[in-house]
Amino acid sequence: MKAFIITIGDELLIGQVTDTNSGWIARKLTPLGISIVGKISVSDEAEAITNALDFAQAKADLIIITGGLGPTKDDLTVQVLADYFKTELVFNENAFDNLKKRLHSYEVELSPSHRAQSYLPESAILLDNSLGTAPGMWFEQNEKIFIAIPGVPREMKAILEEGIIPKLLKHIEGSVLYHTFLIAGIPESQLAEKLEGIEEALPVFLTLAYLPQLGNIRLRIGGIHEDKHLLAQAIDSLAGKIRKKLGTYLVSEQDVNFAQAIGKLLVDQGKTLATAESCTGGNVAHLLTLNSGSSAYFKGSVVAYANEVKKATLGVKSETLAKHGAVSKQTAEEMAIGVRKTIGTDYGIATTGIAGPTGGTPEKPVGTIWIAVSSKEKTISKKLQLGNNRLTNIEFTSVLVLNMLRKVFLIQKEP
Amino acid sequence: MKAFIITIGDELLIGQVTDTNSGWIARKLTPLGISIVGKISVSDEAEAITNALDFAQAKADLIIITGGLGPTKDDLTVQVLADYFKTELVFNENAFDNLKKRLHSYEVELSPSHRAQSYLPESAILLDNSLGTAPGMWFEQNEKIFIAIPGVPREMKAILEEGIIPKLLKHIEGSVLYHTFLIAGIPESQLAEKLEGIEEALPVFLTLAYLPQLGNIRLRIGGIHEDKHLLAQAIDSLAGKIRKKLGTYLVSEQDVNFAQAIGKLLVDQGKTLATAESCTGGNVAHLLTLNSGSSAYFKGSVVAYANEVKKATLGVKSETLAKHGAVSKQTAEEMAIGVRKTIGTDYGIATTGIAGPTGGTPEKPVGTIWIAVSSKEKTISKKLQLGNNRLTNIEFTSVLVLNMLRKVFLIQKEP
Repeated sequence: MKAFIITIGDELLIGQVTDTNSGWIARKLTPLGISIVGKISVSDEAEAITNALDFAQAKADLIIITGGLGPTKDDLTVQVLADYFKTELVFNENAFDNLKKRLHSYEVELSPSHRAQSYLPESAILLDNSLGTAPGMWFEQNEKIFIAIPGVPREMKAILEEGIIPKLLKHIEGSVLYHTFLIAGIPESQLAEKLEGIEEALPVFLTLAYLPQLGNIRLRIGGIHEDKHLLAQAIDSLAGKIRKKLGTYLVSEQDVNFAQAIGKLLVDQGKTLATAESCTGGNVAHLLTLNSGSSAYFKGSVVAYANEVKKATLGVKSETLAKHGAVSKQTAEEMAIGVRKTIGTDYGIATTGIAGPTGGTPEKPVGTIWIAVSSKEKTISKKLQLGNNRLTNIEFTSVLVLNMLRKVFLIQKEP
Repeated sequence: MKAFIITIGDELLIGQVTDTNSGWIARKLTPLGISIVGKISVSDEAEAITNALDFAQAKADLIIITGGLGPTKDDLTVQVLADYFKTELVFNENAFDNLKKRLHSYEVELSPSHRAQSYLPESAILLDNSLGTAPGMWFEQNEKIFIAIPGVPREMKAILEEGIIPKLLKHIEGSVLYHTFLIAGIPESQLAEKLEGIEEALPVFLTLAYLPQLGNIRLRIGGIHEDKHLLAQAIDSLAGKIRKKLGTYLVSEQDVNFAQAIGKLLVDQGKTLATAESCTGGNVAHLLTLNSGSSAYFKGSVVAYANEVKKATLGVKSETLAKHGAVSKQTAEEMAIGVRKTIGTDYGIATTGIAGPTGGTPEKPVGTIWIAVSSKEKTISKKLQLGNNRLTNIEFTSVLVLNMLRKVFLIQKEP
């Protein structure tokens, strides 16, 4: 099945809002064997929307339209769809009842524009919106499926997961399964080389997708087959082979982000962590605390931007800073030890370096960064030589220091 | 002038990469009076690219194509453009010389694929790429302009700013000027009400655009007029009226992010800052340190996720935690005072609250957050009642506590 995504809204065209909806939709649909052949963003104008519908339906079997379903004057999608499918707008009692219930729970008064929002195309199958007032709509015409959903990300996601995907699965012949690996410590090109033999021998009904991010890669096996049991076996067998090749590069086989995976390792061992951050400026703590439940293992951080803080709060020695400088093996290690003791945790991790774009010297150019991990048993450190981009350096270093901690766990697990 | 953006690459369709290029381009072009009428993403396939070109040129005078210009087999844009404009690919000596120079500076060996990259459409005007190996291309046909640029964001941005915008300005009749305000502490709807009279009296050659973000708004005056002097005067006069209406909501009239603006205020006063973060988990420190030069005013942070850290490192009293809890006015204020003293800065700011989605109680539901600012003279605090979304709570609180610091500066400035 081929799909085309249409996003509607002036805010997308003037660059006020970045469209993250279509990427999210793509990541949900491609594992179902639906390939996204294109996406288009147009303004809130009837002609532009109609042109986009014409273009999209010539290329795809499934057309997903997001946005333009709100109650204000510039939201034209409902009327345009009614015209496009030559159907009438009729007052939908069900939609209106749902709307009233929802408004009541929000303690919002009913207004005439809400009533107007319940006039919907007669040929639409409604998709309940559990998080908002505008329902989704499903149309079938000329053996093609058209779906219209609100552009508000959380409403779009809820309707897609609760209403659309179960309905789409009925249109897909066979079962769909997938399996995901979170991988770190190996570049994408090297990973592809490692898996070359496996990829060449891949059964036609399975796919292997690489989803690289800064410092880690998500590898996804996807498959569609009429025999669900056989499909599950094939995926299991392939996953087993990949797992063997991955060795210690494998971080997790659950659907978690990298910091969550590290957190889970800490929880499993009943251990706690603190971070001492100079060049990452709090980003490691931020990544960890973005995850709900992180207080179980993350106790705190000292962002030691100034040398005075490295000394006073983390206990880095004045002689160390004078002799080796703030960006050095010795300082990184003393920071990691210091934060572990100050905050009172099992592990301490540290970053110190020149994030750039200025501040480099011939001996320590921009991108020179030291990372360290300390436990009661020992303290290790490593030098990184990254590039000139400040944001990349901060984000990459944050992942690399968490991966260094993971490697320490792996070594400890060895007999 | 109407523009259409075409982005090329499978990675955009499968949701592996979020397209931030087209938003960036839109934000650069709309102030020049160029309206973006649509954007489309297609895969690396000749037919898909050709279809997109047909569709785009029917709607716009300027077509900007990004991506597909690299050296690998799946990069088809050059060949497709040559076919589309019925021009030959010819070896371009200039492009090859530039490429060689660039590779030399990267210490990369010349390969046959690099030579192949220098065969370019004969009718193209080349746009120098100061940051990469693939040049941009400019075509004029049937009174329309087609521009092809690499999809790598930093290369795309460099070519657009250095090569394309100066050339486009020659095609735009009249002068283009704009002026931007960074505003915080007022919701968009209230700001729009405040400026209603001004908007109604806006001269036809000026526009006013609202670009809202979490906790702050960018307001941009843009204008096009053949008489540059008159345009500058009109913008100055309008800016003056708006400035008066904004009062203390005005943060900056420079092109800076919110944390940078706060940093600038600190630099101007020769003051330093430290942060004590519980619910924001290091995000305030992260926002500050994303900006190069922040070490001049930002000295460090204590991310006190655990109560033990609040006590041991920040000096929050055990009785305070026992009597009022970690999420309270008293704890927030003691954290702000504590971090100011521990790190030894002029100002300390603090956040403590329930970021969610779990952890709420009937008395302190999710989204209950206290923020505080402390200086040698005094310590103030404020309760926030935000929503259930963890990420939104973290990001919104970070901006609000920085804005609270800004208000303290304003009060101090008063006679």
